[in-house]
Amino acid sequence: MKTYLDCFPCFLSQALRASRIATSDEKRIKKVLDEIGMLLKDIPLESSPPETGRLIYRKIEEITRNPDPYRAIKEESTKKVLSLYPALKNAVKMSEDKLLTAIRISIAGNVIDLGANRAFDLENDIEDILKRNFAIFDYEPFKVKLDRSDEILFIGDNAGECVCDRILIEELGKPVTYVVRERPVINDAVHEDALQAGIHTVARIISSGTDAPGTVLDTCSSDFMDIYTKSQFIISKGQGNFEALSFEKRPIFFLLKAKCKVIADDIGVSEGDIILKSAI
Amino acid sequence: MKTYLDCFPCFLSQALRASRIATSDEKRIKKVLDEIGMLLKDIPLESSPPETGRLIYRKIEEITRNPDPYRAIKEESTKKVLSLYPALKNAVKMSEDKLLTAIRISIAGNVIDLGANRAFDLENDIEDILKRNFAIFDYEPFKVKLDRSDEILFIGDNAGECVCDRILIEELGKPVTYVVRERPVINDAVHEDALQAGIHTVARIISSGTDAPGTVLDTCSSDFMDIYTKSQFIISKGQGNFEALSFEKRPIFFLLKAKCKVIADDIGVSEGDIILKSAI
Repeated sequence: MKTYLDCFPCFLSQALRASRIATSDEKRIKKVLDEIGMLLKDIPLESSPPETGRLIYRKIEEITRNPDPYRAIKEESTKKVLSLYPALKNAVKMSEDKLLTAIRISIAGNVIDLGANRAFDLENDIEDILKRNFAIFDYEPFKVKLDRSDEILFIGDNAGECVCDRILIEELGKPVTYVVRERPVINDAVHEDALQAGIHTVARIISSGTDAPGTVLDTCSSDFMDIYTKSQFIISKGQGNFEALSFEKRPIFFLLKAKCKVIADDIGVSEGDIILKSAI
Repeated sequence: MKTYLDCFPCFLSQALRASRIATSDEKRIKKVLDEIGMLLKDIPLESSPPETGRLIYRKIEEITRNPDPYRAIKEESTKKVLSLYPALKNAVKMSEDKLLTAIRISIAGNVIDLGANRAFDLENDIEDILKRNFAIFDYEPFKVKLDRSDEILFIGDNAGECVCDRILIEELGKPVTYVVRERPVINDAVHEDALQAGIHTVARIISSGTDAPGTVLDTCSSDFMDIYTKSQFIISKGQGNFEALSFEKRPIFFLLKAKCKVIADDIGVSEGDIILKSAI
């Protein structure tokens, strides 16, 4: 996805929010805003928002000297979702279409996004997403592709959300490689978040090599790129990964909730809509 | 009022909104955002937001080459409020405390603010404000001061709102000098907006000399400063004027609705609260 004009004030809002989590020193936060302000002119509209997100969050790290401000928040959200795990598993078990329910739960986990959304109520959101109609619903091609694939590349998004992804992985019935970010950025899942969520019990965990809040391919490792280009079935979770990969002509299925108006408009859906969308 | 960290993303949002009204040329809008971004580092937290607003809106004018993007919108809002004038006059007439009802109507007019608020519903807002309790209510000192004053300096805020101010002026029962901005900035009232609202039939209209979206005294004319410093009873309408004058130790009564969280927190009230506050 390209960067829209509306993304620019949002870059600054996100920088402010993240800086406040990283430090209480107002002078440093002001310095972050100053530097992000100066950086805006170098952001081409053709770049994807996570490419800029990467620059922003690295700048915040540099100025606040806090390499992982969301560590405690991430652990807290994983714990929270783990406590819901038995109930979520039961919802899958009791449902008519177990795979679809697991997909819904995985999307619901995507509300745990501290970049785009300040506040969320996970339990309410799960309740809502279990009932809500999909705005884009490429479920048939998803099932066909799943049947024909020997393995699945599953690109994760946020910590906490990993627990919901684990529930989906458990329903896929195929070997899964689960992708996390290389370094902390916002509350995106890194290796230890996936471990805490128990992903290692159901999948192999690898890093994409990126420190962007989305799978910006130019910043990924060659090891990851090898796996990515060979993959015949890719699941991409969340906005950041969608923004980074939406132009790819690859066998990707995007699972996300459109949490901001810009992304909803880009996809052609309404804010709040849930999406299961094939890239090709 | 000082500039808070939260004002910075808002400066960029406002610049984007105003630029889009001024031009449809995406490249110019991007240039506005680039230039405002670079300007942020030079904004001290000690300055008041309208001081920065002035720089922003002049930059937008320079880049979009549109000196008065809100002209049509302003005329439309004045027309709209003029169509409500008879009903509003009747509300005053039928009320127990005519002065207070007129104050409420004048505050209700303050929702016509295209800087802080994108959308508003004037009729609903008037309805609400006629019933709502004041969060700060210095009405007794206001009445005492009014009784003892020979004339009133009334600092207007937005176009359209002028019509509501006219209703208050008609209840004050004292000679009023009504202050407008020197040059267009957002939808703030300039001379012709006050004329269209019929202010000239009830008051003398003068300009403060400023082109800021608030009465930033450093940017006002010496003629205005003469009148201002001699005034014994000043009414200041809206957020922009409050932000610019809140540190003044002068006989000012601020009439406003706290339309953003930052200003509400600064005053110590809740967002949406209405205020009649003495400066001293």
